Amino acid sequence: MKSDKISEAVVRRLPVYLRYLNELHTREVPTVSSQELGQKLDLNPAQIRKDLAYFGDFGRKGIGYDVSYLIEKIRHILKLDQQINVALVGAGNLGHALSNYNMYLKETMKIVAVFDSLEPKVGSMINTLVVQPIEELGATVKAKSIRIGIITVPNIEAQRVADQLIEAGIEAILNFAPIILKAPPHIRVHTADFTTDLLSLAYYLEDGKEHETNE
Amino acid sequence: MKSDKISEAVVRRLPVYLRYLNELHTREVPTVSSQELGQKLDLNPAQIRKDLAYFGDFGRKGIGYDVSYLIEKIRHILKLDQQINVALVGAGNLGHALSNYNMYLKETMKIVAVFDSLEPKVGSMINTLVVQPIEELGATVKAKSIRIGIITVPNIEAQRVADQLIEAGIEAILNFAPIILKAPPHIRVHTADFTTDLLSLAYYLEDGKEHETNE
Repeated sequence: MKSDKISEAVVRRLPVYLRYLNELHTREVPTVSSQELGQKLDLNPAQIRKDLAYFGDFGRKGIGYDVSYLIEKIRHILKLDQQINVALVGAGNLGHALSNYNMYLKETMKIVAVFDSLEPKVGSMINTLVVQPIEELGATVKAKSIRIGIITVPNIEAQRVADQLIEAGIEAILNFAPIILKAPPHIRVHTADFTTDLLSLAYYLEDGKEHETNE
Repeated sequence: MKSDKISEAVVRRLPVYLRYLNELHTREVPTVSSQELGQKLDLNPAQIRKDLAYFGDFGRKGIGYDVSYLIEKIRHILKLDQQINVALVGAGNLGHALSNYNMYLKETMKIVAVFDSLEPKVGSMINTLVVQPIEELGATVKAKSIRIGIITVPNIEAQRVADQLIEAGIEAILNFAPIILKAPPHIRVHTADFTTDLLSLAYYLEDGKEHETNE
């Protein structure tokens, strides 16, 4: 099961499945069909069956997928059955929001350190973490076995922070700055973008309605 | 060109194409091949050609896509060649981050009103906008021809805010609360989820490395 065998699109859909499966599990729903998953998640059921078939023969015809079993399998595939430590760089509004959000996560992926380069932010608290100066990044990444870095600094600082994270030995980066980062091929970089979600929504607006109220 | 003819996955990829095309345009690159787009965006070139073929025959063999023309076409398809007004409900850290982010957008989709239900936040400024009490939602949506609502309130308030947005006449919702919202079928709801990006990154981490430092 190597990363080059499964497309990024599939890997990105797995957490979406996982979220809904967790919800079903909370509601004590034992099984779910690909039709139901498809309807709920706005995906083609055939696509879902194909996605899940990458990882083995989970589903049973006429019964569907065993929710608990599928959760366990996806968690294993996504390596969520092990603790993965994350560092966040940039203690601004977005950094705060992500840290708060992370507190809700049942997953074993945890923000264990927050860094900033600005004097007033360093030393302040985000949840239970003290914001550390960026100079401590290297030592902390090693001490806390941090493997993933989240970048929530302004655009102009993002590439420098990425370089520092890579230098510190991080393996993957989630970048929230709306720029494309340069990184060596062994470092996985995902760029998160609110605007992708927002802009694609406009497609579904009704044509012509924008004139209604202004005429 | 109706919404039911193009899959959500395709519509969601268009802003990703657009972002990179805008970057090429800034760098004055006149044409781009599906191979290059694919490499840069981690997508299959055949998938890209198929996606863009939905909207007409843009590419020319051996030359590639005209960057300016493709930008214009995608903007038109996504309805970004018209002003679309957006309301944000929830003036917390995430609401602030999104509003700041929105200031950078060249797109015509703009947050034109921010609402909150909490006393200390109401009346404060986010960029150039005064945070309004949620009671003013209905009147403001009408007065400002707002068509999309962004929800950045705590989970427990998200469904109520969604109901208020729908009642106010909004057509689509971008929800940042990690819950699944109920909405009538004519209202398009996208749920944004940081964790999808973050969790899918773990897949690309090297196996076994998590034991290295703790043994």
